[in-house]
Amino acid sequence: MTAATAADRLLDDLASGPPAGDLVTDPEVLASYRRDQAAPALVPAGMPAAVVRPRTTEEVQAAVRAAARHQVPVVPRGAGSGLSGGANAIDGCLVVSLERMTDVVELDGASLLATVQPGLVNLNLREAAEREGLFYAPDPASYEFSTIGGNIATNAGGLCCVKYGVTRDALLGLEVVLADGRAVRVGRRARKGVAGYDLASLFCGSEGTLGIVTQATVRLIPPPRSSATLAASFPTLGSAGAAIAKISRNATPSVLELMDRTTIQAVERMAPQELDDTVAALLFARSDLGGAAALRAVDEMARWCEEAGATLALTTDEEAEGRMLMAARRLAYPALEHQGATLLDDVGVPLGQIPALLDGIERIAGEHGVTIGTFGHAGDGNMHPTIVFDHRDPDSVARARAAFAALVRLALDLGGTVTGEHGVGLLKRGFLDGELGEAAELNHAVKRALDPHGLFNPGKGI
Amino acid sequence: MTAATAADRLLDDLASGPPAGDLVTDPEVLASYRRDQAAPALVPAGMPAAVVRPRTTEEVQAAVRAAARHQVPVVPRGAGSGLSGGANAIDGCLVVSLERMTDVVELDGASLLATVQPGLVNLNLREAAEREGLFYAPDPASYEFSTIGGNIATNAGGLCCVKYGVTRDALLGLEVVLADGRAVRVGRRARKGVAGYDLASLFCGSEGTLGIVTQATVRLIPPPRSSATLAASFPTLGSAGAAIAKISRNATPSVLELMDRTTIQAVERMAPQELDDTVAALLFARSDLGGAAALRAVDEMARWCEEAGATLALTTDEEAEGRMLMAARRLAYPALEHQGATLLDDVGVPLGQIPALLDGIERIAGEHGVTIGTFGHAGDGNMHPTIVFDHRDPDSVARARAAFAALVRLALDLGGTVTGEHGVGLLKRGFLDGELGEAAELNHAVKRALDPHGLFNPGKGI
Repeated sequence: MTAATAADRLLDDLASGPPAGDLVTDPEVLASYRRDQAAPALVPAGMPAAVVRPRTTEEVQAAVRAAARHQVPVVPRGAGSGLSGGANAIDGCLVVSLERMTDVVELDGASLLATVQPGLVNLNLREAAEREGLFYAPDPASYEFSTIGGNIATNAGGLCCVKYGVTRDALLGLEVVLADGRAVRVGRRARKGVAGYDLASLFCGSEGTLGIVTQATVRLIPPPRSSATLAASFPTLGSAGAAIAKISRNATPSVLELMDRTTIQAVERMAPQELDDTVAALLFARSDLGGAAALRAVDEMARWCEEAGATLALTTDEEAEGRMLMAARRLAYPALEHQGATLLDDVGVPLGQIPALLDGIERIAGEHGVTIGTFGHAGDGNMHPTIVFDHRDPDSVARARAAFAALVRLALDLGGTVTGEHGVGLLKRGFLDGELGEAAELNHAVKRALDPHGLFNPGKGI
Repeated sequence: MTAATAADRLLDDLASGPPAGDLVTDPEVLASYRRDQAAPALVPAGMPAAVVRPRTTEEVQAAVRAAARHQVPVVPRGAGSGLSGGANAIDGCLVVSLERMTDVVELDGASLLATVQPGLVNLNLREAAEREGLFYAPDPASYEFSTIGGNIATNAGGLCCVKYGVTRDALLGLEVVLADGRAVRVGRRARKGVAGYDLASLFCGSEGTLGIVTQATVRLIPPPRSSATLAASFPTLGSAGAAIAKISRNATPSVLELMDRTTIQAVERMAPQELDDTVAALLFARSDLGGAAALRAVDEMARWCEEAGATLALTTDEEAEGRMLMAARRLAYPALEHQGATLLDDVGVPLGQIPALLDGIERIAGEHGVTIGTFGHAGDGNMHPTIVFDHRDPDSVARARAAFAALVRLALDLGGTVTGEHGVGLLKRGFLDGELGEAAELNHAVKRALDPHGLFNPGKGI
């Protein structure tokens, strides 16, 4: 049986069988489902045989059963905003796009939880929670367009996870469609519970390789109180690292972010903020303890920054002013993208290795003759060194790729991880065994147990 | 091959093969390894063929390999302080006691992490962290004697997990000896990371059924600042429930605990605290925001308690006075135990169902003619209704067992869990499928993938 035949049979099945959602076979529309936001220079993408856009769990089950019957690989897809190719199509596959499953199934304010469909955009969940006077904490940079299902697939982080945790920490339970088409519930509605294995955490971050999430029950929390903000500039990467260490050991900021000189200069070039672009790094911190307590908290952090050698440390408890102080951080990636093609990396190291990571990044930039702007989540040790290159110059492309690999190896050498929050997808697969070591086989054993025929997202994630 | 023969061959192997730790075969000593702290009335315990007390990962590997070779079940054991029979011996098994693996392997203050052996007592990890100016958050009531390995096996909770999370939330990585004797590392040292499946969370709470933890890397946090304390008394369970809801939706207490009238009366009888034992419930809350901020936080909670109908709400920012206010809560279980034999339950419900849970418990006590004192972690919806009975009276025993089953069913009916933090062990196995439903098979698929011959703790946990 050739792939083409299997796809044809699948299409017949989807057209004649139980409803599996809107079926797309128009090649131009299919093409728009080929890729997520990972750099095309680094990851391949195939052409799907079809896309289905289910609206219900039952339709997802029908789609999965049809694909399983014809041994057509299934690629689950949220908003396509992933950065590692995890949602990239495979030639002849069935893309199951969850974009139409956007319901808030329940919002139980008294139990501080919400149950939602996977296609709901993070922002829309935040807004629904807000209407109940509650807060959904995980805030990936993509929160305005990425979906909860995608956030769960990658166990997305964000700015405020330094205080509130990543997507997994907000996850209580899931409904998942398995490779045999069964829909099962894992996890729970209670806040604590230890009955059975922690399968909700197992599916979280599994990048669509174990099943398709069709409902998620997430934890809501009291809304943060008003925030105060700190921005501090450092003459050396070492002094910034010392400030990060002092803050991490002594306080609980709601945001703790860093950007380096290359990134500052890129921001100044694109949208001048009157930043001193001769400093080595800017550090941003926020406290959301409310009113005077928040200001006291950032003032204390400002003092620690000065003790670590900061040349300037500004604090404010006014939200508008705080937003201005943080503006440069929000512009970091757009400004680097403005300079050319970019390879965005996503490495993580133990907190104590941040200075060594920053030093190593500078060394790699020099050795490979590339520009690397670094910004990221200092309080989690999760950095996004971003290589700027000229995509028309093969030599520049080659140097960028070599630098990218060197960055990932650096993180591993420092006892870190090849991906802090973006996921392995296709982008980091070549590096994964270097991190997992002997546990790689254990990952595959779990995959075989849950998806014995390799139906879901083959070749991704693990 | 009979069980006895297999055990004899195992003993020969352990005596002559690679070192697997001190070998215990003295029947009297073996007997002391038969049980954990679960009520003997409810769970069986076998007699082990042998106990080994390894000191290294290699010795654990040797023990597991020898047991696997002779198909002798392995029961891992920490301090034996579990409450569900998870560490109870099986006839003819090999107990692998981790009690001698007590090293702090590393304490990296700059990275806010510690790597420890599984037999280290929670308190000793807390003290080691404290010497570095840091804090290990998970604080099960047993923290003075329970081990980190046992805490991980049950994903132990505690008082302050309402703010800081349970054991899983503090877990970064593990070294685990698998059923084939391999030692693998899962998880990471970085604070965030999404490479590979979340196997550290999978092992956490798996009750020794998937492998033996031989090292754990845990996350440390900045020490809490000084605490302020609130104790409030309520005329009805409903008014206490309303206060819990208001606090949970609007604040982040570091402790939020409840005890009911039966428990208050038991405490007053054993160790008079001058409590008003006519009230329906006492609520205890703490804030650890430090100084005036902590006091403001508990004062705000006190106001909410009064609005909800509290007849008295006392607050203090003095540690000694706070400890006095909390004394009754610490005496809750000892006081109930003082009244007779007890069956300690451990159910969890979504926060909004706490009033219904408390009402249901009263109803069950009436229907079954038993005394049930309830206390527990109100802020997590995790309660410990404790049935007091006369173990010499078969009728009292029968009524206690029936009430126990009714409590667990009540929690399930309210969308809750059969165990919030104590684990399934043997005690809750009969109720597990009622909670897991179709996911039960998924749990078994994971078990088969990791432990195909059912070597580890058969008959427990799942």
